[in-house]
Amino acid sequence: MRKKTTIYDIAKELNITASTVSRALNDNPKIRKATRELVQRTALEMNYEQNKVALALKSGKSNNVGVIVPRIDNNFFSSVIRGIEEELYPKGYHVIICQTHDLDDLEVNNIHSLLNVQVDGILMSISNAELEKNESFNKLIKNKKTPLIFFDRKIDIDGISSVTIDDFKAGYDTTQHLINQGCKRIAHLSNNRLFEIYKNRYLGYKQALIDNGLNFDEDLVIETESKVIEGRKSTSLLLDLEIPPDAIFSSSDFVALGAFQEIKSRGLKIPEDICIAGFSNEPFTRFMEFTTITTINQFPIEMGRIAAQVFLEEVNITNVKNKKNKNVVLTPELIIRKSSSKPFIPIKS
Amino acid sequence: MRKKTTIYDIAKELNITASTVSRALNDNPKIRKATRELVQRTALEMNYEQNKVALALKSGKSNNVGVIVPRIDNNFFSSVIRGIEEELYPKGYHVIICQTHDLDDLEVNNIHSLLNVQVDGILMSISNAELEKNESFNKLIKNKKTPLIFFDRKIDIDGISSVTIDDFKAGYDTTQHLINQGCKRIAHLSNNRLFEIYKNRYLGYKQALIDNGLNFDEDLVIETESKVIEGRKSTSLLLDLEIPPDAIFSSSDFVALGAFQEIKSRGLKIPEDICIAGFSNEPFTRFMEFTTITTINQFPIEMGRIAAQVFLEEVNITNVKNKKNKNVVLTPELIIRKSSSKPFIPIKS
Repeated sequence: MRKKTTIYDIAKELNITASTVSRALNDNPKIRKATRELVQRTALEMNYEQNKVALALKSGKSNNVGVIVPRIDNNFFSSVIRGIEEELYPKGYHVIICQTHDLDDLEVNNIHSLLNVQVDGILMSISNAELEKNESFNKLIKNKKTPLIFFDRKIDIDGISSVTIDDFKAGYDTTQHLINQGCKRIAHLSNNRLFEIYKNRYLGYKQALIDNGLNFDEDLVIETESKVIEGRKSTSLLLDLEIPPDAIFSSSDFVALGAFQEIKSRGLKIPEDICIAGFSNEPFTRFMEFTTITTINQFPIEMGRIAAQVFLEEVNITNVKNKKNKNVVLTPELIIRKSSSKPFIPIKS
Repeated sequence: MRKKTTIYDIAKELNITASTVSRALNDNPKIRKATRELVQRTALEMNYEQNKVALALKSGKSNNVGVIVPRIDNNFFSSVIRGIEEELYPKGYHVIICQTHDLDDLEVNNIHSLLNVQVDGILMSISNAELEKNESFNKLIKNKKTPLIFFDRKIDIDGISSVTIDDFKAGYDTTQHLINQGCKRIAHLSNNRLFEIYKNRYLGYKQALIDNGLNFDEDLVIETESKVIEGRKSTSLLLDLEIPPDAIFSSSDFVALGAFQEIKSRGLKIPEDICIAGFSNEPFTRFMEFTTITTINQFPIEMGRIAAQVFLEEVNITNVKNKKNKNVVLTPELIIRKSSSKPFIPIKS
């Protein structure tokens, strides 16, 4: 078996000192970029195996960043991750992803595991709306120098930064649009409002109704898990009301799709009988054969990029006491499609 | 500040030896399951922080498993990952995910990083069809005891196990179905056939034509990247042929959707004028408003579970020389939907 390549072998090969090799391999900015690249290339060619974990234990840097999301199989989260990767890869970071399937236990386990493999930071969208009450979570983040950044589903914790959209505005704008279409009895398929994002979408919806002098009816608001089948069930309840709604604003595209299917299955017309608006701009909302679905663009790639930029700022702060949290709020965009575009805009009476 | 909990504190608390605590925390099967669970629960309650990286360095076990996929934002890969997680979480493993965006460099970097954080195994679907020719890859896997298991997109490497579906059969069955619908000029939107899975789908298609005495026309086969927009472009080429096809079998649902859009935009009818069949059973194929899309079920959750089971077998083999690779091939299922169900089955002439 061949002898293992050491940094001394690389130093000899390049006629530089071993300490330069070591620093170059650790991406020390004191070494010129060209030299760092030459050393790194040579190390790869000579099959040098750096024990990064051992290095991480020594230097406290692993160049790995962890991302935790409720689930990877929706376009919103996978696009945020893409934004994070686009920002971090060129900076030499590697992104590792974990999903929680919305399980509180798994969420804490994920954080634990990522800290244990010495990630340099964690970017996450929370699964437990009351994560701050979780003792294990608090123990994990307390006194840790590892930056933690929330995106989309966040909680307010002193010193922890976040990137979100203005969910209130998104809820308001969508409802206002439905009102402009002549809808007067607008239902809202909400989600667990312990999460700020769902609470704010709901509050925006409510405010738009009030501002337009429309009746706010609690019976027209249903908390629905973000699944197609749950959207169908909730819509079925709404359609069975004595006076059913003439529009549905859902805080999830998946739920909006369920609403769509239920309405169609009853022979009702979209948008003529009932308008629909979803949330997140999942690809299927624009792939619909005839009736594309109105939705909200949350600019997920940008959200990911900004979350990554915030991480890059925070990871370079050596004195944790200087750290101030940054809360970036992006402006959402309403995308009006066929599901809420009535053939004519009725004249206001 | 409170003193850190040690394994001795836990031992004292439970009135057992420190070595039992240590082994229980490392999930050593020599300790009774009930004891292991009690110790682990107590450790959590007492806020014991195990330094897993240090442990990994000592024991060679991290209880982390890495999964590498081309991209997380399609239902097939995210479902495989779900299957892997369902199998591994109850066994105490934690799953970390990386995506390559089909970039060869990123793929090798992912393997490198996962090995560096001491994962106990890597389950992957390859992005570089000629990965075995990649020197860095070979260096990384050579002499490593870390099990590597391929799923879906694989290459044949001695000693490396894989889980796939019978792609030839999937291609054959789909084509036979289209022939049974009376189609005689069936086009195939393929993908890079250096990948075994795409080659086999193509070969199945070709064989079905031959077995049915139909003409195989190379002009009707186009290699298309797995994207909606590319599906549109390729279909446009097919429709511009002097004699356009009467059916399209695509090895990707995304490409099939592009075909769908292009055909509709030209005012042609599906399935009356052209039948369409895709591959993978992405949710949108059944969410279509009217014309649901025929596709292939690859049983991704089962594929993930089996890949995880193969990993569990291999990780417990102490003598690498006893390791034999296992190649599991699942049977695909053709799901016939409206896009290829003609109003009547023509009588064979």
